[in-house]
Amino acid sequence: MQSDRYEKGLAMMRRIKGEDKPAVLESLQDIAPDFARYIVEFAFGDIYARPGLDVKTREIVAVAALTAIKASHTQLKGHIASALNAGWTQEEVLEAIMQVVIYAGFPAALNGLLAAKEAFAERA
Amino acid sequence: MQSDRYEKGLAMMRRIKGEDKPAVLESLQDIAPDFARYIVEFAFGDIYARPGLDVKTREIVAVAALTAIKASHTQLKGHIASALNAGWTQEEVLEAIMQVVIYAGFPAALNGLLAAKEAFAERA
Amino acid sequence: MQSDRYEKGLAMMRRIKGEDKPAVLESLQDIAPDFARYIVEFAFGDIYARPGLDVKTREIVAVAALTAIKASHTQLKGHIASALNAGWTQEEVLEAIMQVVIYAGFPAALNGLLAAKEAFAERA
Amino acid sequence: MQSDRYEKGLAMMRRIKGEDKPAVLESLQDIAPDFARYIVEFAFGDIYARPGLDVKTREIVAVAALTAIKASHTQLKGHIASALNAGWTQEEVLEAIMQVVIYAGFPAALNGLLAAKEAFAERA
Amino acid sequence: MQSDRYEKGLAMMRRIKGEDKPAVLESLQDIAPDFARYIVEFAFGDIYARPGLDVKTREIVAVAALTAIKASHTQLKGHIASALNAGWTQEEVLEAIMQVVIYAGFPAALNGLLAAKEAFAERA
Amino acid sequence: MQSDRYEKGLAMMRRIKGEDKPAVLESLQDIAPDFARYIVEFAFGDIYARPGLDVKTREIVAVAALTAIKASHTQLKGHIASALNAGWTQEEVLEAIMQVVIYAGFPAALNGLLAAKEAFAERA
Repeated sequence: MQSDRYEKGLAMMRRIKGEDKPAVLESLQDIAPDFARYIVEFAFGDIYARPGLDVKTREIVAVAALTAIKASHTQLKGHIASALNAGWTQEEVLEAIMQVVIYAGFPAALNGLLAAKEAFAERA
Repeated sequence: MQSDRYEKGLAMMRRIKGEDKPAVLESLQDIAPDFARYIVEFAFGDIYARPGLDVKTREIVAVAALTAIKASHTQLKGHIASALNAGWTQEEVLEAIMQVVIYAGFPAALNGLLAAKEAFAERA
Repeated sequence: MQSDRYEKGLAMMRRIKGEDKPAVLESLQDIAPDFARYIVEFAFGDIYARPGLDVKTREIVAVAALTAIKASHTQLKGHIASALNAGWTQEEVLEAIMQVVIYAGFPAALNGLLAAKEAFAERA
Repeated sequence: MQSDRYEKGLAMMRRIKGEDKPAVLESLQDIAPDFARYIVEFAFGDIYARPGLDVKTREIVAVAALTAIKASHTQLKGHIASALNAGWTQEEVLEAIMQVVIYAGFPAALNGLLAAKEAFAERA
Repeated sequence: MQSDRYEKGLAMMRRIKGEDKPAVLESLQDIAPDFARYIVEFAFGDIYARPGLDVKTREIVAVAALTAIKASHTQLKGHIASALNAGWTQEEVLEAIMQVVIYAGFPAALNGLLAAKEAFAERA
Repeated sequence: MQSDRYEKGLAMMRRIKGEDKPAVLESLQDIAPDFARYIVEFAFGDIYARPGLDVKTREIVAVAALTAIKASHTQLKGHIASALNAGWTQEEVLEAIMQVVIYAGFPAALNGLLAAKEAFAERA
């Protein structure tokens, strides 16, 4: 039996990722299925699904924060694709990533831009 | 003689900060005036003033990135005030900060929320 | 109506913090009460209360991780006090903090030791 | 002639890593052999071998700190293997890694879990 | 039409990198050519070309800072090669990287040393 | 009985800090005197005193690395004072700090510049 939070989070995750079975959840099934559940319930069900900020804005927040912490290309590409799904243009996503140079320096922004390059190529 | 980039950056900075003489620039005059100039010319004149992303969105990008890197309350409060100036509601700013818990953990989001609490109080 | 997760989390939080009304929750009531709720429900109800690792061990994990990310003295002191409540000696807590010099350098370990000094003094 | 600290550190390193010639030391021989010596003398001889905290606990401290700083899979896998050697179960190691989501966010904990998945597979 | 800052920055970049067409700029041409321009104009034209500190010293500053933030091997190797071009010996570069163990811990310094090993091998 | 490493490290520390009893060592005496000893023996006796890089260069490496990791003002001020003791001018130290904007962004460089402002004022 799955919680309402899980249902709500999975619906949100599928919508923004455009994946029926999100890859990150699959990768955790044999090692830490509860952690996959927390991604769905907490990150997407509790936080993302909150009504006070629209999903499109949340996706640019995600791209900005992940660029600033120099997340892996895998993680960045996932949210860059989601930002495009949410209605941002490639140009707008690149602008947000470039802006992070101010707060976190050239290596962080460069890492984000190269992840975007890969994300756009995979989508094309 | 000041460059066009400086003029453009200072106009942008004044607009989003609502300060005629931005405090961060004043604090640098006797130690590193050129660094103050780079904030104006590069951060605001080159990056912020780029046409590909609207200023309102740039302010939420700033709040997200600064929360993620656990910036000081001084730096966070400046951009939280600018986000409000740009048209975001207090609720929306709090939502963006809370969302960063996903990417950078509870200490980072908590730091951002407490900075917002101070910023809102100073504004009231 | 509060969830089971909230009940379980608050009981855990009270137990390890030795506070009936944890200060961090109070500090959030007027700015982001839902975030206070997530600390209780997710951090303590979902994660801390998991049966696979005992609470005493979880407290040394918290001290190690917070030292490594150079958390604020406020955050470090809270978990240092909790580690003592959970049965670790002052010497053991200091040893764990010192060990982090290997992974995160002298400034991080020094920050942790000075937070411990304050935490021990407040407790005395 | 090697110091007592070196002897003590190498014995500790061999014990916790289960390697006669630890790979990290080998990788440094042609570029910075003194740095390999510091790993042995300082990290393992001075810090790890201190009597105030048992080696089993030190290994969970290492896993927690390395997860929090998003260390490379190579570094994480080494200490995850050592934690198992020291007597922690796979479940307990996964619990410690998952707990770090609180302090450092989902990307850091996810990175740790995927390193653990590899470490467990290599061991099997 | 290119700015004086671009001319000055590109001359500086070519000099310290020993590349006529710096690879990092090429990698950005199809995704974010303006960001490539900022690297040239701001990082190299405004900052590196400032007269108050000689270029040789700037290269050891770059190696120290990039080691401390655990930059990628690609980024570290670029500045390690530049430090050698600027007149530092391999031994001196290794010493600077090793010293960062004090401020940022063994994983950061180890990452830097292994990048140096690759950089020296590619150069040989 | 103190080791040769301790003697060598303390002499180095006194020389570069210009303090007979370095404040950081004093602050640790009642909480973690062994950690104070490691600062002397390892950081200064093993690393700083290595012959392959002169002390003046090591001080600019310290300033660069500490600025990049956004160390506390206390830690930054200590090494900024040492850099001046080692023969760098105020202008050169400011240049090194400003350069870190490239690698770690404006908040990190700004933090370093404001620490320098305090360090110079205390010295005047």
